[in-house]
Order: sequence, then structure tokens, then C-alpha cells
Amino acid sequence: MIRSISLVLATALLAGSASPQPANAADTTAAKSAPTMQQVLDASKPADWRMLNPDDTLYMDLPQGRVVIELAPDYAPRHAQNIRMLAHQHYWDGLAVLRVQDGFVTQWGDPAAEAKDPAHPPRSLGKAKAAVAAEFERGVGQELPFTLLPDGDVYAPEVGFSRGFPVARDPKTGKTWLVHCYGMVGAGRDNAPDSGPGTELYAVIGQAPRQLDRNIALVGRVVQGMQYLTDLPRGEGPMGFYKNAAKQTKILRVRLASDLPATERMHLEVLRTDTATFKALVESRRNRSDAWYLYKAGKIDICNVPLPVRKTPQK
Amino acid sequence: MIRSISLVLATALLAGSASPQPANAADTTAAKSAPTMQQVLDASKPADWRMLNPDDTLYMDLPQGRVVIELAPDYAPRHAQNIRMLAHQHYWDGLAVLRVQDGFVTQWGDPAAEAKDPAHPPRSLGKAKAAVAAEFERGVGQELPFTLLPDGDVYAPEVGFSRGFPVARDPKTGKTWLVHCYGMVGAGRDNAPDSGPGTELYAVIGQAPRQLDRNIALVGRVVQGMQYLTDLPRGEGPMGFYKNAAKQTKILRVRLASDLPATERMHLEVLRTDTATFKALVESRRNRSDAWYLYKAGKIDICNVPLPVRKTPQK
Repeated sequence: MIRSISLVLATALLAGSASPQPANAADTTAAKSAPTMQQVLDASKPADWRMLNPDDTLYMDLPQGRVVIELAPDYAPRHAQNIRMLAHQHYWDGLAVLRVQDGFVTQWGDPAAEAKDPAHPPRSLGKAKAAVAAEFERGVGQELPFTLLPDGDVYAPEVGFSRGFPVARDPKTGKTWLVHCYGMVGAGRDNAPDSGPGTELYAVIGQAPRQLDRNIALVGRVVQGMQYLTDLPRGEGPMGFYKNAAKQTKILRVRLASDLPATERMHLEVLRTDTATFKALVESRRNRSDAWYLYKAGKIDICNVPLPVRKTPQK
Repeated sequence: MIRSISLVLATALLAGSASPQPANAADTTAAKSAPTMQQVLDASKPADWRMLNPDDTLYMDLPQGRVVIELAPDYAPRHAQNIRMLAHQHYWDGLAVLRVQDGFVTQWGDPAAEAKDPAHPPRSLGKAKAAVAAEFERGVGQELPFTLLPDGDVYAPEVGFSRGFPVARDPKTGKTWLVHCYGMVGAGRDNAPDSGPGTELYAVIGQAPRQLDRNIALVGRVVQGMQYLTDLPRGEGPMGFYKNAAKQTKILRVRLASDLPATERMHLEVLRTDTATFKALVESRRNRSDAWYLYKAGKIDICNVPLPVRKTPQK
């Protein structure tokens, strides 16, 4: 799953993240021929990792902790640009988590924009746009790497990874699009295709809602801090919106990493998805070699492939 | 998704549960030719629903609210029997949620059984068994109805529903098994196949971890109250176990409905999965007719099929 695996440093977490078993029984028994995911990561080289680009990295600080989001300008360039502009202007500071619908999404933005009360107009978007043309799919670009997954998909002709994101492709139409896996972030919209300018964002917190693919702009993914979006109280209103504003979690601030001094930026790397190491990682998850597994699935769904994140190793 | 949709009475919730959109923009526009899920449910007949069997229904009361679990004795009869015996004896009363691993599982049981501290032995199992033979798959029985889903599956040759549960089948081996969808409940085990007697149970809270299929006994599913298992703080230890026992959520009590007087039983019905109504519901989710959808998926993953629950209508 697109689970924000804490940090590779947390070896026990990674090694044991597989099975609902007592804590003490996980990790004995010598490794079989096939390496585990942890062994794959331990053997990785520096070039298998890439630093998050500060221009594409958002820090959203909630009272409980920080959510780190990587934008996907290859797939949603106009939305990424508008979101950067909103972050420049500190648009989200003091706004709130508006909606937590169990098994579906956590969504945040301007309570006044939702309430539509003339006495309390929504916050100004400043230089950002109120409408952004749909970015629901794009052409398969020669410049985009693509690591095909071998086991197919219920929804799309082909699925795989491109620059760290789960994507689908249709060779017949020549189109590719981001896929709604756990942790993916999108721009909520009304019925009009251009009505989601990125002011109100959502993250997937349950089973991949793939019916949303190609219906809404995915703009990035959570690379760290998913738990701060998933352990919130579910909204008691329709679609998980909070009826009681007092239950809404306040957003302390959202910053683009490149807007902060270098000393305040986090040093996070994600595993590249166009490498032999990533392919070995996928294989380690298709066929688990941990002793606990009696039956190897031999298959993997795109939304069950982990995308590891780590602190940049100290030199 | 196997989302415990609150109650059919909550019309707005069901109708709108589809899209990350502002609350006010959902439900206008006249219905197109194909009915929505809500319209399918509104047109359902009493015979499309079945009461939960009190012998197969567990009430787990947490401080925040009640989780209702339906056991699956067709697939895990020995585990169901052992779990009933544990409930008869009030085994779980005062025990705790031990583990919440983000995007994966919430797990509950006896903290002392996990801690393995000789000074604090685990709670007695009384007449229940400490080992139960594996029930990871079974023969495709003539007596079991099966509603095949039309869109295939990444992991199994066939998937569909049987008596309200998501199942997979392999015509070559003649075997069938329960599938790890959101909300499914299983019996945690150590490495030995018979080491999960149902004392320590888990519920899936993230993307369906299908690699667990056929590796562990699924014993039922959450039909109501999932939010009380998903909004808990994530465990800070390896695999999401709590390091600090003070963070564990206490279980107030677990009761089998048939152990309670009739006046204390809930009157809940679930939609039968061997009906034309259920097939229409699946179709309504394969091709969403809500105005918000610009693109109809035309497909559905087994773990995205909702299994509606309602209060028994008052006569």
C-alpha cells in the first residue's frame, strides 16, 4: 500500500509490517533464498534514492504533527502551480480539516467556503486561481519513466510507477493518469471539471477508491505523517463532514519547503521507482519470504506496493 | 469498499458517499437512466435483507462506542465456536486494543499474552481452546451461494460474495476463501498455523492486504462501528503495537448477541448478496450515475463493493 513507511531506520517496523501476529513472533527464522523488503532496502545504493524537490514538497503542520506531501507536477502542473501560490500566501494557515469519512477520505480547506454563509465570506485566494482546468489524465510522455507491474489491474489496462507515483496507462488512447491509492492527495471539486483549484485537498484513507480515477485531479501523495490524517474523529455529518466546527482539526500552517530557509527544510529521500532495487522490492512483496507466510500470493495490487521514505543518511 | 455504511436511514450519507466534493454540491441533477445505489436500496424488498443471526453476532463495546461483528461460521466454524466460547466467558472484558498499524490493522486481545512476562500470566481461556486448526480455505460447497463479480481480480481466479462475505474461488482446486477487505476480522496467529485461536483478533483498516489471504483465518467482518477501530491513535512501536500501555484503548465488554436477553439485542439487517437487488447495487457502483462522475469506471474491485446494513424497519 502507499503507506508512508516511517523511516528505513525503523528496521523492525519495515521487517514486520506484514502480518497480524504477536509482536514477539515476527522475525526469527533465517531468510530463505528470496530477500525480504528490508534486505532489499539494506542493499540499496545512494543512487536508488532521490531527495524530495523543495519546490514540490509541502509541510502541513497539524497540532498532532507534520504531514509531508509531494506534489506531482508531471501529472497536474497547473494544480501544482496554484497550490504553490496558495502556500506562498499562507492560504491554509488557520483553516481546518473539514471532513473525515471513514474508509474514504480526509479533506481540508476553508470552513467558510463550505458553509456558503454570506455573512462569513471565504478567505481570499489572493493571486491564486479560483478555477483550474481539469488535469485528470495526460499523454504518455516519452520523458516519463514507467515501471510496469506484472499482475494486471481490475480498473486499467496497465498499471505501474512513474517518478514515485502509482499510475495507470491505456495503450489504446495513449493516456496515463495517477491512481487513487491510500495516501494519494487530490483537489476536491464541485460538478464542474475546473472547480477544484486545489484550495480544498483530500487524502485517501481507506480502500483505494479507484472509481475516482480520471474524475478528479490527483495532485500528489503523502510521504510522511499519514497517521495524522487517519486517526482523526470521523465526521458525524453527511459524507463525513463535521457538523460541529469545534471538532474540526485546525491547520497550524502549510509551507512549501522551498519557501523556508534551508535550515528549516526536512531531509527526506524516497526510493526511485525506475531502478532494479525497486523491482526487487516489488518482487519481495509479491512473494513474501518471511517465515510467517505459508502461502505466497505471487501477485500484487498497485496500491499494495510500498513507497519507502527515509531521512537522508548523514555523511 | 466493505465500509460499514451506517444505516440506510441515513440517506444523504449513502447517496453522497462517493466523491471528494463540497457538501452542498452533491445531489442535484435528475437521476440518469441507471439507478444510484440509494435508489437500488430504496426499491429493495424485505426479502432482500436478512437479520443478523444472534449466534453469529458479537458486540464489542469500547469507550467510544459499539463495534458489531458478524462471524463467518461457513468459512471458519472451529474459530467461530472458540470465539463464541470466549465471549460466553466474558474473556475480552477489560482487555485492550494492543495494536493500530496505520493503513493495515487494528488488533485487540490480552496485553499479558503479548508481554510474555512470567510475573503477569495471561488471562485463562477457560473452556476455550488455546490452539485451533487452520481454517484458511475450504471446499466450494454446493450449499454455498456465490455471486460472481464480473471484473476479475489481481489475486484470485474468481471473486464474489457468499452469504454477505467477500470470497475468492479457484475452480482448479475447488477451494474458496474469505478475502481481506476493509473491515474484515481475522484471528492473529504466530508462525504455527494453529496458533490463532481467536483470542487476539484484528480488523483491516487500510488498503486490502490481500497477501494475507489463505495465510490466516478470517472469522467475520465489522458490520457497524468501524470508525471506533480506525480513529484510534496509531501505535508507536514496531508493527503499530503500543509501547505505552496507557495508550491502549480498553475493551469494556464483548458479548455474543444470543447470550443477551432479547431486549438487549440490536435489530440489524444486512443486504443479502444472492439477490437481484445486490447485483443491481454492484452495477450502480461499477457505473456511477451521480452527476458528479464524468467518467464511469465500468469496473469494480471486490473490496469496493459496499455491504449495506440497516436497522430492521419498524412494523
